Amino acid sequence: MSNPRLRPAAGTPGRYSYDGLDRILHEKARLGIMTCLLTRPQGLLFNELKHLCALTDGNLSRHLDVLREAGLIEIHKAFQARRPQTTVTLTPFGRQRFRDYLDELERVIRDAQTCPGADPRTQPAPTGTSWLPI
Amino acid sequence: MSNPRLRPAAGTPGRYSYDGLDRILHEKARLGIMTCLLTRPQGLLFNELKHLCALTDGNLSRHLDVLREAGLIEIHKAFQARRPQTTVTLTPFGRQRFRDYLDELERVIRDAQTCPGADPRTQPAPTGTSWLPI
Repeated sequence: MSNPRLRPAAGTPGRYSYDGLDRILHEKARLGIMTCLLTRPQGLLFNELKHLCALTDGNLSRHLDVLREAGLIEIHKAFQARRPQTTVTLTPFGRQRFRDYLDELERVIRDAQTCPGADPRTQPAPTGTSWLPI
Repeated sequence: MSNPRLRPAAGTPGRYSYDGLDRILHEKARLGIMTCLLTRPQGLLFNELKHLCALTDGNLSRHLDVLREAGLIEIHKAFQARRPQTTVTLTPFGRQRFRDYLDELERVIRDAQTCPGADPRTQPAPTGTSWLPI
């Protein structure tokens, strides 16, 4: 390598592989569901969760299935005034796993703020750019 | 709803949808690549990036293609001592987009720490759990 400016200051192999971001929790909708549940230890009703995460019935059901199969949440079905009511809560295992995941997210943010030489997040923002959601 | 404990304190619809986590940047390997590049404004050589992110040649190439097609990175190919050398840098647009993405990640972490009633991240961790990567 001839250009020392291109050499990373602390170039540990795999330094940026973020293995703690497991696929089940890192999926955007499930990340929202888990955050929502983490902050409500008593659990949430299916419809509350659906509105808070802006998901359809079908999408929420599919994501809850994935989380339940991984042992991260529990689903409790009951009747309230003759109407079915589904309550979703985190399992202790899910709570611990999600905490570990959040620790890894915090590491990403810290890494992004640690620039060899200068902090890129303090550089002026470029102008004239726009972004169309994909 | 009959159980007030299940009602969210601030239940804005879509509060946890995290629309700012766009799919291109949220993918784990690309998140590592972008973090790595953000902290090295002069760019990185392909092989450095490969080692830092613990990716194979093929995987890194595929992810770089996705990022380049979205206008987030630039790839510069040159020869150094008769050997081909590929340098990857963020575009100003990519830098701004990734900053916005990181702001949304920080919002997830703040949300996870904001519990109606109690902070679940300060609760004791459950014991006897284990996690097998999936």
